[in-house]
Amino acid sequence: MTRERIAASRARPLAAEFIGTAMLLCAVIGSGIMAERLSAGNTGVALLANTLATVFALYVLIETLGPVSGAHFNPVVTLVMAWRGEMGASPWPLAMAFIVAQLTGAVVGAWLANAMFDLPVGQVSTKLRTGPGQWLAEAVAAGGLLFTILRAPAGKASALVAAYIGAAYWFTASTSFANPAAVMGRMASDTFAGIAPASAAAFVVAQLVGGAAGAWLAVRLQNAPS
Amino acid sequence: MTRERIAASRARPLAAEFIGTAMLLCAVIGSGIMAERLSAGNTGVALLANTLATVFALYVLIETLGPVSGAHFNPVVTLVMAWRGEMGASPWPLAMAFIVAQLTGAVVGAWLANAMFDLPVGQVSTKLRTGPGQWLAEAVAAGGLLFTILRAPAGKASALVAAYIGAAYWFTASTSFANPAAVMGRMASDTFAGIAPASAAAFVVAQLVGGAAGAWLAVRLQNAPS
Amino acid sequence: MTRERIAASRARPLAAEFIGTAMLLCAVIGSGIMAERLSAGNTGVALLANTLATVFALYVLIETLGPVSGAHFNPVVTLVMAWRGEMGASPWPLAMAFIVAQLTGAVVGAWLANAMFDLPVGQVSTKLRTGPGQWLAEAVAAGGLLFTILRAPAGKASALVAAYIGAAYWFTASTSFANPAAVMGRMASDTFAGIAPASAAAFVVAQLVGGAAGAWLAVRLQNAPS
Amino acid sequence: MTRERIAASRARPLAAEFIGTAMLLCAVIGSGIMAERLSAGNTGVALLANTLATVFALYVLIETLGPVSGAHFNPVVTLVMAWRGEMGASPWPLAMAFIVAQLTGAVVGAWLANAMFDLPVGQVSTKLRTGPGQWLAEAVAAGGLLFTILRAPAGKASALVAAYIGAAYWFTASTSFANPAAVMGRMASDTFAGIAPASAAAFVVAQLVGGAAGAWLAVRLQNAPS
Repeated sequence: MTRERIAASRARPLAAEFIGTAMLLCAVIGSGIMAERLSAGNTGVALLANTLATVFALYVLIETLGPVSGAHFNPVVTLVMAWRGEMGASPWPLAMAFIVAQLTGAVVGAWLANAMFDLPVGQVSTKLRTGPGQWLAEAVAAGGLLFTILRAPAGKASALVAAYIGAAYWFTASTSFANPAAVMGRMASDTFAGIAPASAAAFVVAQLVGGAAGAWLAVRLQNAPS
Repeated sequence: MTRERIAASRARPLAAEFIGTAMLLCAVIGSGIMAERLSAGNTGVALLANTLATVFALYVLIETLGPVSGAHFNPVVTLVMAWRGEMGASPWPLAMAFIVAQLTGAVVGAWLANAMFDLPVGQVSTKLRTGPGQWLAEAVAAGGLLFTILRAPAGKASALVAAYIGAAYWFTASTSFANPAAVMGRMASDTFAGIAPASAAAFVVAQLVGGAAGAWLAVRLQNAPS
Repeated sequence: MTRERIAASRARPLAAEFIGTAMLLCAVIGSGIMAERLSAGNTGVALLANTLATVFALYVLIETLGPVSGAHFNPVVTLVMAWRGEMGASPWPLAMAFIVAQLTGAVVGAWLANAMFDLPVGQVSTKLRTGPGQWLAEAVAAGGLLFTILRAPAGKASALVAAYIGAAYWFTASTSFANPAAVMGRMASDTFAGIAPASAAAFVVAQLVGGAAGAWLAVRLQNAPS
Repeated sequence: MTRERIAASRARPLAAEFIGTAMLLCAVIGSGIMAERLSAGNTGVALLANTLATVFALYVLIETLGPVSGAHFNPVVTLVMAWRGEMGASPWPLAMAFIVAQLTGAVVGAWLANAMFDLPVGQVSTKLRTGPGQWLAEAVAAGGLLFTILRAPAGKASALVAAYIGAAYWFTASTSFANPAAVMGRMASDTFAGIAPASAAAFVVAQLVGGAAGAWLAVRLQNAPS
């Protein structure tokens, strides 16, 4: 292919990663704002609503955008897919472009949620999330996510990823960000789902370590060739 | 076909659009009334119940009536389907009939909900829903709905539309009407899910603009012929 | 077949109707007791829990017992299936036996729920449910149920019936009994899901009228032979 | 096969039972801790969250680990499968190894949940759960679980088991442990989902009796050969 045709063939997947990550973060942050406003101080009710909205949104986004880009919406997923050889023979330039699309999409999704709820579009979260329990939780959350993706039977990744995140919102102490792009977007909204920039780096490190461990375990469990 | 046979062949789809939109609005409004009565002032609990009932009703109505009429239940969907050529070569008379069936069905569904809950059947909502955040939310809600419908893999539209609306009830600031027939029916019940007539026109304009944008984006993302 | 072999061939379907209706009522009543005890006076939370448990139970019971008996668990469904010719050429003796199995199973299921929650096993509900709104609601609830069953695409009846009842718990003013066997069982527990015997007859009449109307409508909407 | 190859062929299923039971208990206990912390004293909201997380986790774990080990995660299930001949001709050594993997995995899962929520890792529950209602409930819970597993149509066990447990959390008075490994893990966390060691033995006996009865009933209901 000529250089121009390659560029054209990559425009759609990159647009899908941008749109999908934007709408995922818009759903996570927007439903968090709505849930906190309506739940009269019962944070359990608020997180139930936030969970349902996230589960439904993930299922829809993976089904509708998966055929275009694989529906990563998450740099850890993109890195593992590149390492596993599922993004072609020299995957790193495309992987880097995916990650840029995800991180910028996440911020735009946060801005859209802020705008819909009549909040200042540009803002920064002040919600500290820190400590060994939170970091362990993020490693578990990302490890489980990668394990689920790599072991999902054909055609079931959308339902399984959505269900996994629905469970992990509750069983991990951090409510399962499990995604550096989610950290990025959630920094841009000082609301229910936010995270302060000072807490971000440790979350991302934990996600990378946990994601690598989960992927390693999933590969090890493959049935050996007889 | 003779004129009579054409009329007969159209009676079933129009009945399906009338019944489906009526039952959809009956479910939305009825569950809103029940939820508000039972939730002791916790609006988060009320909207959770309203969401579950709407998701379940949409899934059932699309599955049971889709084979008869396509299960639009929404004038924006009908307009996009007509424009996309999915309603035959000269689709506009049928599209107009669909929209009339949807709007009248929506009002009848609201009346049925009012009657079941021992409220005056004929009533008008006084609930104002207005402002740029709400209008942006309706554009996003309708855009996402059309995007979801046009990109749903074969056989999955029922689950995906239901899941999408379940998410959008929470992540859009307007609780996602996303449908001029929903606006019509909700005007006819002065309860949890209602909308005052003064707020209706701007909602419908936002839905039309957003729906057109979502449909355009879905078409653009189609994989190009190689 | 000899008389004995016919009797043997009918034992399994009758057992399935008895067990299925018993476990359905046990799930409805038991989850109602649990939900009321735990929800601290927020009836909305209690009905949400009652709804989830009923939806999950219906899905499991229809999937596991459907291959044995058709999974009616409901005299209105059995009467419509007999009328539609789906229970053989002279269906009425079998239909009557099904209904006896359903009604006795329902009471046994209520007793089981009472026993698990350390309540007196034999008891009678004192919860009056009456008035035109309630009766209209029961007619709508049963009509929608029969419509859903008769129009469910092959293999989807379990999910559709479960989803329909999940919606109807909220959008009908009566919380959708939609089933004379449910009325029977719920009379036998003076708890959240109960109904006083004085309110029973009108509920059953409304269910029969509504069920017949829903079945008629479903048949009318079938695509005409071309 | 040589002795070494047999050992290797069993390492993966045992790892799957260990990991699956660990993550199941981590999900049950972790979501219980989170739910109790957030729900402001409304135990109904807490159990709703605990239910959703458990349903989602079960579905994911059965889908991702079922192909490796059959996804028992439960000694009662393993015993019934061995008895039914689904674990080979001399199944008992493997069955015993499965049960050891399940019981140790359950404790490790509890420790992981404790650690994520910044609680002492090693602890013992003090929550008494006792009385005839609770024991009857555990027998019903385990009986229903085995019945569901043995009668699940091909490919649907994951959804049906998850849905069954989601219902049984509410309709059984004990919130449906239904699993000796769950008893084991829940003893190791003095939180929402815990059970005191003094209450454990009776629960396990009830589960064994109920599980055997449910399995017997499922086998009896098989359609007889004509």
